[in-house]
Amino acid sequence: MKFLDGSWKKDTCAWEELLKEENLGKTVSIEGAVHSIRDMGEIVFLILRKKEGIFQAVCEQNGDAPSLEGFREGMFLRATGVLTKEDRAPHGRELRLTGTDVLSKPDKPLPLAIDKWKLDTSLEAKLNMRPIALRNIRERARFKIQEGLVRAFRDYLYQEGFTEIHTPKIGARGAEGGANMFKLSYFHKPAVLAQSPQFYKQMMVGVFDRVFETGPVFRAEKHNTKRHLNEYTSLDFEMGYIDSFEEIMDMETGFLKYALKLLKNDYGKELSILKIDLPDAEKIPAVRFDEAKELAAQKYQRRIRNPYDLEPEEESLIGRYFKEEYDADFVFVTHYPSKKRPFYAMDDPKDPRFTLSFDLLFHGLEVTTGGQRIHDYRMLMEKIHARGMETEGMEQYLDAFRYGMPPHGGLGIGLERLTMQLLGEDNVREACLFPRDMNRLEP
Amino acid sequence: MKFLDGSWKKDTCAWEELLKEENLGKTVSIEGAVHSIRDMGEIVFLILRKKEGIFQAVCEQNGDAPSLEGFREGMFLRATGVLTKEDRAPHGRELRLTGTDVLSKPDKPLPLAIDKWKLDTSLEAKLNMRPIALRNIRERARFKIQEGLVRAFRDYLYQEGFTEIHTPKIGARGAEGGANMFKLSYFHKPAVLAQSPQFYKQMMVGVFDRVFETGPVFRAEKHNTKRHLNEYTSLDFEMGYIDSFEEIMDMETGFLKYALKLLKNDYGKELSILKIDLPDAEKIPAVRFDEAKELAAQKYQRRIRNPYDLEPEEESLIGRYFKEEYDADFVFVTHYPSKKRPFYAMDDPKDPRFTLSFDLLFHGLEVTTGGQRIHDYRMLMEKIHARGMETEGMEQYLDAFRYGMPPHGGLGIGLERLTMQLLGEDNVREACLFPRDMNRLEP
Repeated sequence: MKFLDGSWKKDTCAWEELLKEENLGKTVSIEGAVHSIRDMGEIVFLILRKKEGIFQAVCEQNGDAPSLEGFREGMFLRATGVLTKEDRAPHGRELRLTGTDVLSKPDKPLPLAIDKWKLDTSLEAKLNMRPIALRNIRERARFKIQEGLVRAFRDYLYQEGFTEIHTPKIGARGAEGGANMFKLSYFHKPAVLAQSPQFYKQMMVGVFDRVFETGPVFRAEKHNTKRHLNEYTSLDFEMGYIDSFEEIMDMETGFLKYALKLLKNDYGKELSILKIDLPDAEKIPAVRFDEAKELAAQKYQRRIRNPYDLEPEEESLIGRYFKEEYDADFVFVTHYPSKKRPFYAMDDPKDPRFTLSFDLLFHGLEVTTGGQRIHDYRMLMEKIHARGMETEGMEQYLDAFRYGMPPHGGLGIGLERLTMQLLGEDNVREACLFPRDMNRLEP
Repeated sequence: MKFLDGSWKKDTCAWEELLKEENLGKTVSIEGAVHSIRDMGEIVFLILRKKEGIFQAVCEQNGDAPSLEGFREGMFLRATGVLTKEDRAPHGRELRLTGTDVLSKPDKPLPLAIDKWKLDTSLEAKLNMRPIALRNIRERARFKIQEGLVRAFRDYLYQEGFTEIHTPKIGARGAEGGANMFKLSYFHKPAVLAQSPQFYKQMMVGVFDRVFETGPVFRAEKHNTKRHLNEYTSLDFEMGYIDSFEEIMDMETGFLKYALKLLKNDYGKELSILKIDLPDAEKIPAVRFDEAKELAAQKYQRRIRNPYDLEPEEESLIGRYFKEEYDADFVFVTHYPSKKRPFYAMDDPKDPRFTLSFDLLFHGLEVTTGGQRIHDYRMLMEKIHARGMETEGMEQYLDAFRYGMPPHGGLGIGLERLTMQLLGEDNVREACLFPRDMNRLEP
């Protein structure tokens, strides 16, 4: 009988080993994709792409050397050779080839020059050929940064006593009611795709006190802008026993500080590939919604058209204001008008026209919405009735309150928007592996 | 201007502090839900439920003591008192109450006796009242164990050089083609919900060499059994440059060993609440599909009815066989018949009627399906044509191969099934917070 025990050993050389001084002069094998080939006649340079980066192999075309006849970009190889010091090569070393095994051959030459430092292609073309375009070193680096953000979110919240949950994406109704939901037929019953895990994470506060989820959410919004996706990854948390809604913002600040530290420590390679200057989240200013509008309007001579909403341009000006006045990359805008927030938002007891809620702007773009929620059953029912809403399909959610819930609140962070702002991109599609928008369902 | 800096300090006593010897005799405040009340006349016991467990508060009903008039289960409190040694209480200590603040009151008495050690309720009733039933200490403990499994999966794979990805759940077509997919209308275009991230994770092997995803998958299967959910969480990975399909099984074995260690170290409380004996994954036997069928048929006198498929009863007998003969909790069944595997499965070059694929059985239930995939474009196209399949909607997937892919393979683990087997439950719904089956769309 054969047994597996988790001890599989590769006979290829690990990346860290390639970079060690003591291994210079040794014969090693490495596997990788042929990222580019430069044939200089007497000598051929083969640049191999691995997950960790690129590595140079060289082959002098003399009698003993392996033939590279027919080699081309897009092949996958196992290359064997002598690890040799070479100051002009990346990492100061190269592999002098003594043998190659071809693992696979492409059927066609690559349609994009992925070996160029910057892919000189339109966003549309990049998205159409996404699995190929992402093989470019800079394109893929963005998604390592994104990985770091999600890791940081989970690690920080575990450390803060949160429990990770997985909640259903197909349901009978959504958290915000009616509009903007994708509808489907679920064994002949009408169903919708979750716009957010809102109801579920709130219900789970009654179970685990503090919970989080990282998962997809679906919005059937008919917005075709640079900031909108119809499916995105939402980083959600919800916490009970809060002293104030400011505690939620403070938890987010803690996460951001942790995330920036993690990126600095563990994703330095990608930060440098993308030339990213990390923002500062040490102290994040918080300003009331009405005040923020006023400040931006005054400083930039802009008339306030709608006192109840922030237009994208206003968000951008508020971001600019706080950058100029406080050197702040992030700003919390608090106390959004009640009529612009969902029914479960807690109104400010001092002035119920406003809520104990907030958005986080990052360089002038909303990347988070959060706030305190109503936890008292009767207050919740009053708000539902005052809004003329139906409770059908919300029975279980309401029951959680009927049988008791602690004061609580939480937030949702749009992962792609957070990534986009960190990368300094101007289109959120650059920060999503396979974006879904009104016109794009593939690849 | 107000600033947030991530340094919010609670003035309540943290759980670890409650348990420290040096804090006995001190006056502290804690917050929690009233899990149960025992009113003995002169003395009232108030059992508080917090995320970490339960804690006893007592109140002698004399002149100085705070009145607990009207207190009932389901209330949420801040309780203040003197931390006092008491050997008969959980954790050997209790809080002698000097004051209480009511944070919230339920509108109705709890419909379930959640303070009982075992919830004496049918599965159906538990699922109907899920947000309340999960407040039971044993019910919720299962989902901490589940959290541990997901954490372990990610942590182990990060350590092994995998990159986490987020792939779309709405798409133009699925990995396995036609059947068993939920259909929806996406801005007037036909779309489906992803049955698995199969195509995406394969495409991403060309980018990051090794990738993983933890997320929801959707199966419109008309199975209403104890083992099926129509939406579940899939733990997927895909790895390039494999030496053999056994390397994939070895990686899974490594994950399982890591997970069991993590559970032992970090989830001891929950393991003990649920009285779980962890299984052994140190050495996992691997047996061919046809051989496994034969072994079980011989030992348990069962006739083989279908040589191409494993019936649930056969899986169970194979599990029993390997437990009895090798004391094995897990067994890899390898070389599934080609006709039962999807088109992208790599056939065994020695006998193309079988594939280089496997399932992992855990106590006789399939918890994983995996295998090596075809990486050569022409071989893939031949298989597609031989099966009479259409390539429409697969262009991008096929392009990844056309432009070159390394040898690779991977697997998908059903999180709820893995949890169910670890817990020793006989219904997968016990291992899903909010299950979706043919009849259940709520809560």
